[in-house]
Amino acid sequence: MELQPIQHLKDTQNEPDYRQIPIDRVGVKNLRYPIQIRDKARAIQSTVAQFTLTVDLPHHYKGTHMSRFVEALNEHGPMIHIDNVREILDRLREKLHSEKAHIEFEFPFFLEKKAPVTGAVGMMDYTVQFAATANGSGEFDFVATVIVPVTTLCPCSKAISAYGAHNQRGQVTYSVRFHQPIWIEDLIQLVESCASSELYSLLKRPDEKAVTERAYLNPVFVEDLVRNIAARSDLEPNIKWYRVEAENFESIHNHNAYAVVEKERR
Amino acid sequence: MELQPIQHLKDTQNEPDYRQIPIDRVGVKNLRYPIQIRDKARAIQSTVAQFTLTVDLPHHYKGTHMSRFVEALNEHGPMIHIDNVREILDRLREKLHSEKAHIEFEFPFFLEKKAPVTGAVGMMDYTVQFAATANGSGEFDFVATVIVPVTTLCPCSKAISAYGAHNQRGQVTYSVRFHQPIWIEDLIQLVESCASSELYSLLKRPDEKAVTERAYLNPVFVEDLVRNIAARSDLEPNIKWYRVEAENFESIHNHNAYAVVEKERR
Amino acid sequence: MELQPIQHLKDTQNEPDYRQIPIDRVGVKNLRYPIQIRDKARAIQSTVAQFTLTVDLPHHYKGTHMSRFVEALNEHGPMIHIDNVREILDRLREKLHSEKAHIEFEFPFFLEKKAPVTGAVGMMDYTVQFAATANGSGEFDFVATVIVPVTTLCPCSKAISAYGAHNQRGQVTYSVRFHQPIWIEDLIQLVESCASSELYSLLKRPDEKAVTERAYLNPVFVEDLVRNIAARSDLEPNIKWYRVEAENFESIHNHNAYAVVEKERR
Amino acid sequence: MELQPIQHLKDTQNEPDYRQIPIDRVGVKNLRYPIQIRDKARAIQSTVAQFTLTVDLPHHYKGTHMSRFVEALNEHGPMIHIDNVREILDRLREKLHSEKAHIEFEFPFFLEKKAPVTGAVGMMDYTVQFAATANGSGEFDFVATVIVPVTTLCPCSKAISAYGAHNQRGQVTYSVRFHQPIWIEDLIQLVESCASSELYSLLKRPDEKAVTERAYLNPVFVEDLVRNIAARSDLEPNIKWYRVEAENFESIHNHNAYAVVEKERR
Repeated sequence: MELQPIQHLKDTQNEPDYRQIPIDRVGVKNLRYPIQIRDKARAIQSTVAQFTLTVDLPHHYKGTHMSRFVEALNEHGPMIHIDNVREILDRLREKLHSEKAHIEFEFPFFLEKKAPVTGAVGMMDYTVQFAATANGSGEFDFVATVIVPVTTLCPCSKAISAYGAHNQRGQVTYSVRFHQPIWIEDLIQLVESCASSELYSLLKRPDEKAVTERAYLNPVFVEDLVRNIAARSDLEPNIKWYRVEAENFESIHNHNAYAVVEKERR
Repeated sequence: MELQPIQHLKDTQNEPDYRQIPIDRVGVKNLRYPIQIRDKARAIQSTVAQFTLTVDLPHHYKGTHMSRFVEALNEHGPMIHIDNVREILDRLREKLHSEKAHIEFEFPFFLEKKAPVTGAVGMMDYTVQFAATANGSGEFDFVATVIVPVTTLCPCSKAISAYGAHNQRGQVTYSVRFHQPIWIEDLIQLVESCASSELYSLLKRPDEKAVTERAYLNPVFVEDLVRNIAARSDLEPNIKWYRVEAENFESIHNHNAYAVVEKERR
Repeated sequence: MELQPIQHLKDTQNEPDYRQIPIDRVGVKNLRYPIQIRDKARAIQSTVAQFTLTVDLPHHYKGTHMSRFVEALNEHGPMIHIDNVREILDRLREKLHSEKAHIEFEFPFFLEKKAPVTGAVGMMDYTVQFAATANGSGEFDFVATVIVPVTTLCPCSKAISAYGAHNQRGQVTYSVRFHQPIWIEDLIQLVESCASSELYSLLKRPDEKAVTERAYLNPVFVEDLVRNIAARSDLEPNIKWYRVEAENFESIHNHNAYAVVEKERR
Repeated sequence: MELQPIQHLKDTQNEPDYRQIPIDRVGVKNLRYPIQIRDKARAIQSTVAQFTLTVDLPHHYKGTHMSRFVEALNEHGPMIHIDNVREILDRLREKLHSEKAHIEFEFPFFLEKKAPVTGAVGMMDYTVQFAATANGSGEFDFVATVIVPVTTLCPCSKAISAYGAHNQRGQVTYSVRFHQPIWIEDLIQLVESCASSELYSLLKRPDEKAVTERAYLNPVFVEDLVRNIAARSDLEPNIKWYRVEAENFESIHNHNAYAVVEKERR
């Protein structure tokens, strides 16, 4: 099989388009890539992210050049911070000759956590999402999201029952826009402090007793959970916007309880 | 175990709340429920939906009453149309004493489709989503979404290769707001007419030949696919807003090509 | 585009193969199809199934004919019982000229269930899987599986804590082989009777109190849950083999507790 | 809240059980944990795994001690090789006083791959699974699985069509038992050499031309794909058992083509 010289291969994407329809976002989705994240405690954490990279496409171009999105990620290298995401976006805008670029990625994030009584150390896993947009006018938007599993114990069930109270694993999806760079760890801790209890990967019996009793003493509805987190967020001057979503995998139902609060702060 | 009389059980949800935080949406999520959908051809189609039902909660109430969401669905019965979704929302607002109610549900939807040459009949499956909101001022918002799998054949690959062209299954997520009720079938057909080829569940050899050649003669980038659908939507006076998202499960990559166009029409 | 007459199209699948490698199973996977299931209470239940249909392929054939799997399903019609699955398998073997045929399908299944105190009626959803194999010697193997969500309350947490006990949604995957046809409902009920509590879609406050207290009085480890179900299965002469798998979505961890017991009975 | 001294907390798990039912496997499931894998090219690769760790439980014990599974993983540290999985299993058996221990884990695995013409370098992602069992008699079973995405081009579609041929992303799940430790890279390469084409994360236009034409020249049915891999495996004396499963995400259907071959070699 004889290959044509590279300069003769038709560049279909660069052809003009006559439909007069600009495309809001075009690019690559579900690209898995190993990354390193700076964390508060241990400096560098290796993990694996799932990326979506897109740009806008003006109406007069037939197509974008998909391989350049992958090149931009390769050129950047594995080290990703909240403060260098913008470089990737600027590189994307440059390579794709576009006005706007967007990046979204999600990755598992780990924290060493001590059990509350014995101090036994385990690795607790979370999911983190970053979404950012930059344009040619220097505008830059960044949303950080932490997905935090927690315990929720039902206040109604506790109030009406002679003993016990139904409780379950819940999941909080907490997104923020901020003024100054913010630590993932601090967002996670904020969420965990608002639930019936935080979760642990390693609990010995004295820890299990403490966690069980703590949850029983701190019942929260899914409504309380999102309100507690909203109230805590309102106290943080660094947070300029937040969205709190909570979902309880009810232990007494096969469907989930769900609540969401969103707030733009002045 | 002796049960207390029902009237004495504490109603924790009805207690006042002092955090001054109204909740945007609260309710139940991932509730599976059998439904019936009116379709164009066969009058009634039985399927299974996954529901999210929510209302707003004013700041002064501690919690909503989760069981009433399930009751509202039960009372309504299985028959769901585009034109009676509003009744469910009004019933939710009434039962929950709330200003706004939202419903979202997703279900598999089937169409009998004839193979292009032999006419062999197969059942083709799609996914449909409805999302609607109603409030006390009589405002009503309805978004219908069809998720349609299609064939896409790459124009660049065809143009530069001596023979063949990479193609793959793609997926279009097409959402519309409309003036008059609209048939799911028509939305699906609009999408399918814009791809390299539509898909079939049953193809005999003459059909496979026809479909292969049709795709080769109609190459589309993911950009072309969303533009074709946008251009077709622009011709429909009944569509007042649309969002077209296309994702190609590239046969030459392990990531996907992706594009989106959204338009509010006057 | 001129189509060749159907009789001239090359039948690649029918060509001989020289690699001397018979294929254990070949066919179609993830085919969604609407079906009807006979249930104990309401005669007919409409639902949607996901099918895998396969046959063995002798070493001397290059390929199977994929469209015939879809045809066999179409010919059969939507009504599927435990006792007519065999017809589909025999039809598959005949149409594909094969010695062995296999079918696997999974579908949501619903039961009307009364809340334990108020008697309020809700639709509870389950997942059911059927897997069957038939060969030319008249051998027929059928495995029915029910996936049942339940409440589990931790005996250790209850024993060591001053108040409360962690509990959570658990999921039991219970598979059986049997002598006489068996009702899905009976398999579900057997599983539900072995947990801390069964789940409901609709619970009013007196019901929630009853369910909370019932779970507190019936703590089970994941080990107890599979043993209870195994012990109950051992009492059913109609069950000739069972496999019980339980997974607890622990409310105090972000990982799950898991146990499995399998038994061939003489 | 006053905590009881640790030595007084009841050990419910250690209580005797009278149901006479031994449990085949009990432990923890879906535990996410960061690991490091030795790879052929770069010595160490950091990734994130999802673990299931289980042991058998004799009939006379009420429960296992779930926290010890997490401790065993913690004690071991992040570095996991094919040749030290056994240490983890032996540690599990020791800590849990059990006869048999099992480990299963899955993780994304990356390879730098050069595009076929331009040599442009991209990171290609795969999924790897390890499953191992050890018992007190020194028996040790290890199964390595690679999940490899590939291009498949349909021989029938090519043979009957005037131009083009439908092709799509396929996925091969290839499991082996072996005599001597085996490199993940070699298993991946074996699979990729048997498809119409391997996949790349980064392809420039000359590469896309080459890959398109290569696929057109190497059509494979899902049946050919599993047979090619089986035939290649038969040539490897180090492989003592294999199972090859292939699934094509057909570009002309919304269901998948599927085949599987399994072989125990003497």
